[in-house]
Amino acid sequence: MIVEMRKGAAPDEVDGVVQRAKSLGFNVQLNLGSEKTVVAILGSNTGQLSTDIFAVLPGVETVARIMKPYKLASREFKAQDTRVQVQGLEIGGNRVLVMAGPCAVESKEQLMEAAWAVKEAGASILRGGAFKPRTSPFSFQGLGREGLELLAQAREEVGLPIITEVMDTQEVSLVAEYADILQIGARNMQNFSLLNAVGKTRRPAMLKRGLSSTVTEWLTAADYLLSQGNNQVFLCERGIRTFEDTVRFSFDVGSIPVVRRNSHLPIAADPSHAAGHYALVPAIAKAAVAAGADALIIEVHPNPKVALSDGLQSLTPSDFTRLMKDLRAVAESVGRHI
Amino acid sequence: MIVEMRKGAAPDEVDGVVQRAKSLGFNVQLNLGSEKTVVAILGSNTGQLSTDIFAVLPGVETVARIMKPYKLASREFKAQDTRVQVQGLEIGGNRVLVMAGPCAVESKEQLMEAAWAVKEAGASILRGGAFKPRTSPFSFQGLGREGLELLAQAREEVGLPIITEVMDTQEVSLVAEYADILQIGARNMQNFSLLNAVGKTRRPAMLKRGLSSTVTEWLTAADYLLSQGNNQVFLCERGIRTFEDTVRFSFDVGSIPVVRRNSHLPIAADPSHAAGHYALVPAIAKAAVAAGADALIIEVHPNPKVALSDGLQSLTPSDFTRLMKDLRAVAESVGRHI
Amino acid sequence: MIVEMRKGAAPDEVDGVVQRAKSLGFNVQLNLGSEKTVVAILGSNTGQLSTDIFAVLPGVETVARIMKPYKLASREFKAQDTRVQVQGLEIGGNRVLVMAGPCAVESKEQLMEAAWAVKEAGASILRGGAFKPRTSPFSFQGLGREGLELLAQAREEVGLPIITEVMDTQEVSLVAEYADILQIGARNMQNFSLLNAVGKTRRPAMLKRGLSSTVTEWLTAADYLLSQGNNQVFLCERGIRTFEDTVRFSFDVGSIPVVRRNSHLPIAADPSHAAGHYALVPAIAKAAVAAGADALIIEVHPNPKVALSDGLQSLTPSDFTRLMKDLRAVAESVGRHI
Amino acid sequence: MIVEMRKGAAPDEVDGVVQRAKSLGFNVQLNLGSEKTVVAILGSNTGQLSTDIFAVLPGVETVARIMKPYKLASREFKAQDTRVQVQGLEIGGNRVLVMAGPCAVESKEQLMEAAWAVKEAGASILRGGAFKPRTSPFSFQGLGREGLELLAQAREEVGLPIITEVMDTQEVSLVAEYADILQIGARNMQNFSLLNAVGKTRRPAMLKRGLSSTVTEWLTAADYLLSQGNNQVFLCERGIRTFEDTVRFSFDVGSIPVVRRNSHLPIAADPSHAAGHYALVPAIAKAAVAAGADALIIEVHPNPKVALSDGLQSLTPSDFTRLMKDLRAVAESVGRHI
Repeated sequence: MIVEMRKGAAPDEVDGVVQRAKSLGFNVQLNLGSEKTVVAILGSNTGQLSTDIFAVLPGVETVARIMKPYKLASREFKAQDTRVQVQGLEIGGNRVLVMAGPCAVESKEQLMEAAWAVKEAGASILRGGAFKPRTSPFSFQGLGREGLELLAQAREEVGLPIITEVMDTQEVSLVAEYADILQIGARNMQNFSLLNAVGKTRRPAMLKRGLSSTVTEWLTAADYLLSQGNNQVFLCERGIRTFEDTVRFSFDVGSIPVVRRNSHLPIAADPSHAAGHYALVPAIAKAAVAAGADALIIEVHPNPKVALSDGLQSLTPSDFTRLMKDLRAVAESVGRHI
Repeated sequence: MIVEMRKGAAPDEVDGVVQRAKSLGFNVQLNLGSEKTVVAILGSNTGQLSTDIFAVLPGVETVARIMKPYKLASREFKAQDTRVQVQGLEIGGNRVLVMAGPCAVESKEQLMEAAWAVKEAGASILRGGAFKPRTSPFSFQGLGREGLELLAQAREEVGLPIITEVMDTQEVSLVAEYADILQIGARNMQNFSLLNAVGKTRRPAMLKRGLSSTVTEWLTAADYLLSQGNNQVFLCERGIRTFEDTVRFSFDVGSIPVVRRNSHLPIAADPSHAAGHYALVPAIAKAAVAAGADALIIEVHPNPKVALSDGLQSLTPSDFTRLMKDLRAVAESVGRHI
Repeated sequence: MIVEMRKGAAPDEVDGVVQRAKSLGFNVQLNLGSEKTVVAILGSNTGQLSTDIFAVLPGVETVARIMKPYKLASREFKAQDTRVQVQGLEIGGNRVLVMAGPCAVESKEQLMEAAWAVKEAGASILRGGAFKPRTSPFSFQGLGREGLELLAQAREEVGLPIITEVMDTQEVSLVAEYADILQIGARNMQNFSLLNAVGKTRRPAMLKRGLSSTVTEWLTAADYLLSQGNNQVFLCERGIRTFEDTVRFSFDVGSIPVVRRNSHLPIAADPSHAAGHYALVPAIAKAAVAAGADALIIEVHPNPKVALSDGLQSLTPSDFTRLMKDLRAVAESVGRHI
Repeated sequence: MIVEMRKGAAPDEVDGVVQRAKSLGFNVQLNLGSEKTVVAILGSNTGQLSTDIFAVLPGVETVARIMKPYKLASREFKAQDTRVQVQGLEIGGNRVLVMAGPCAVESKEQLMEAAWAVKEAGASILRGGAFKPRTSPFSFQGLGREGLELLAQAREEVGLPIITEVMDTQEVSLVAEYADILQIGARNMQNFSLLNAVGKTRRPAMLKRGLSSTVTEWLTAADYLLSQGNNQVFLCERGIRTFEDTVRFSFDVGSIPVVRRNSHLPIAADPSHAAGHYALVPAIAKAAVAAGADALIIEVHPNPKVALSDGLQSLTPSDFTRLMKDLRAVAESVGRHI
């Protein structure tokens, strides 16, 4: 933590900063510049300290954090790549895993048709929403427990592990009974009660990036999951909110190398929610793999025209099959496989 | 809903749109332009329909929503201003109410000192957090139930109603036992389970704007509360996330007239979280009142230097007293009082 | 400038940073933390240095700037408020000046009608565009030199100084012949050739904030004007680009206290371009004055329905007259007058 | 253009809209819904019309544009892909062209070393800035005409065509004497005088996306170039401004498929300015090619540690050579070559 004093700050103002730092157990070094005094506050946990603690003191101009606020998710904490184990599959290894399926579980027929189709095309994990976060209370809200049952049946019949979203602390144990991977949605990235509850299950968890969260906040949210002893965590870039209006969200492809550089956690990409339109999904999916994504999660619906949610961004099984072929080539071009 | 067909769309593609609309019970009118066909889909509930339903059909170029997606929160649904009743006070009337107090309840002494100070300066409602949403798991998380007890004691001793945040569905009934107003925080604006649970309590609720939510999404989230039969709802602008980095969030003062024009719900303003720094709070607070805010919520701490959270944006009691004086003048200049 | 070395950086990497800093004439102080070495680089011009100079060196993790990149526009450089003199008027004093008039000069009749109307309502300066920056080449581009002639006539007949935009270095001397204040538009805030050319005229200049510029970049752009020896400069907040879509731009009211705190330059506000709709202009205008704006620039058109540009955000003369009355009350409530 | 009247709008308000549309030569169709009247305004040029023209009329609630505001840049205007010809090279064909070189021309030695290095690694075009847009007036501003002379020498000696930025209308003819491709920088995307001047040269021009411009605004700006009869235009995605702070700009990879779908113009990508850091450039470059970019522009400096600008985002020649090898594989995986 670097505290810059105001030009002409009084000696006892500087001393106030020094004493506060020492009272918290940190080392302090003074830098007496020609115009300004700068106080360096050093110690291994300064990243977890709020800058406010010093900024509020008299005579202080600004406070800059040197260490990052996340800890357990950082490469400094753990240098080696984490690999998440899901029913014999590995997220974060050389193979790029593809999770696919419908946005929402609508019926047994719809789910089974989607499950067989994505399996045939080469997907490794089945996605499908039972509890759906919908912006309007007048929209379809998902089948709930019945949707979970259908997912479990699909796993058994088709043989793919399942990933599904959990939205509420009260549903965590229920969803954990059924799901192989618990998904925390973008709107819940900073629902800290939920993060703690999912962390406690020790189940593989996918943490989507909040739609206006910085990478730093995202990795700090991952610390909630990790601090409960759960190390089976991976991230998912799904686009951020910007001013651009031809896509639903702006897929932030740069976050992929940033996460790989600063964190040991694997990172997946969701091109469907970013694009918001099926015609844009393939380009974004290929970009994500080229940039180094460890997994993809893609919406596929047997008949997008009648989908109860997100039909526009869903691929048909035949579009998905074509995309998988293209993705295999891109994965190989960057030294991986699907 | 206005569906624009692609240039050269086939007649049966146009027909597909028409049939889909009719099957949903809507009226359809065709506009045959020189280059493009435009299909107008009319009916009183098209606002609650997803545009995807038509955008996914073959031959469709774009779909524009004419009606707004929110309904119960709209002025079209209810023309007259809603007034929220809190222990004899009214939010949304001529008087601008000021809610003030510490970010977090830290101890009995701290809370009582803050409560007496804000009451003396003219605040009408005491704020204080018992459950705190913190970006890092290593930060102070609030006193929980003990904090609620202290708030109840402060209400009794000092005589101010209390507002406090509820973060989780599992805590709704507990918080509702103590709080006069339930606050839904920015990070939970689209925590739909929580909205439903708070809506069911029928208690006065303040819905903060999500940090990257449009006004339209905010009013649609209010529909969740209202659809549970709770009409004691008001909104709170608290700044949005932008690229600007000299403030914590950009206070979107324009949302105040936009909400007043499109909704019957009262609107409060939180200058403290937007500013992120005590020196900027007064200007933003005055701006909010001048723009038409019905209430303010301001962080005041007896000793910001030792605050466990958000000290930097907290006013001291004497700063707050000075601000209240200024705010009274501004309120009168726009025909209101405090 | 604070350089944080990577954990485990080699001594000669640290030395590389030290030598680079010394070679540029700066003082260096080493902070040897338990885990990381931090190098403080001190000197009065480190604000004008790019952080890249150090970030590119081996072993460096991050570089944080302590001093601000703007210099001449800063309060540290000049503590006392600047006042801009325009034909006997003063921008930055106790009086809040109102500049008003049509978006574009369209005809003699239109301009004269607008000029008399805004004068009667109490405006001090006439605005009107002769050269118009239009997003599409198929839109009305302004009357050019003829528009300037009409503005000069209006000044003579009505007796108000004029402000008008200059868009191109080739037009600077032409526009400077006519205008009392040269306006640099938002889209040109970082058109550095233009800033230099306008700076050289030594004429009063209003620098609008770029639509996605931080306050820091804005003040750094002002340094271009000031570095040419022109101290007759004031700023204008006109809304920033965000995700919100119910207004044209989000008026960043918080920038007003931020600028006043960090700069000696006066600051105006343009509620018209931010709002994009006449119904929202009054609330934003009042908010700007309450927050401390030194001037306002407001679009007024005798008949907005037939305006060739920006009709929707223009006030009618009678709306403007009403608003001026309200603004006088708000100005007085914050100890100023109009 | 679709005009939605307010609920309960009077018949003569509807008539006002109809008459205004007819007076502008458009066809009108009325849609009388159960609650609201909707007026469809049809004609081939409604995209170039401002929505304000109708929004300002009494009784109007909202106006939605159906047609896009850009025309000449659209696929509807020209279905076939444009290919830009540069000295026997083609941008927009099957080959992905790589433009590379230093941010700024600093000296003959630096430029020649860079030019030979990028040529050897397989780049087709040499980049280098002679006029530099710098945010601070105290930064290195480029060598100007001398830089252009050096670029011309490099072209002759090394045999690569050159691309360089033109910042000001007064320099257009000078820069056009030397450059094979005129670059319009992000900060000048809406410098309409400059667009017109460059358009008139009929020289190949690369239009960078403004840092807060929507794709729609970008294509509308391209209309300025095209409307001067210049069809040798291509675009360049270089990242947009968002709240994310671990990169300089957020590379909007989704804009690549959006542009390809809506426009016939080729699109390049600039990973260097988006990333802001050399370590992130390769991932973004590969993503751009996988998403369908027709060209790349990459900063390479013989010795980034002593670069006068943008050293941090510059690759060394050996890093660039490695990246070119990787890019060839990615290009082939999507059916193209470099």
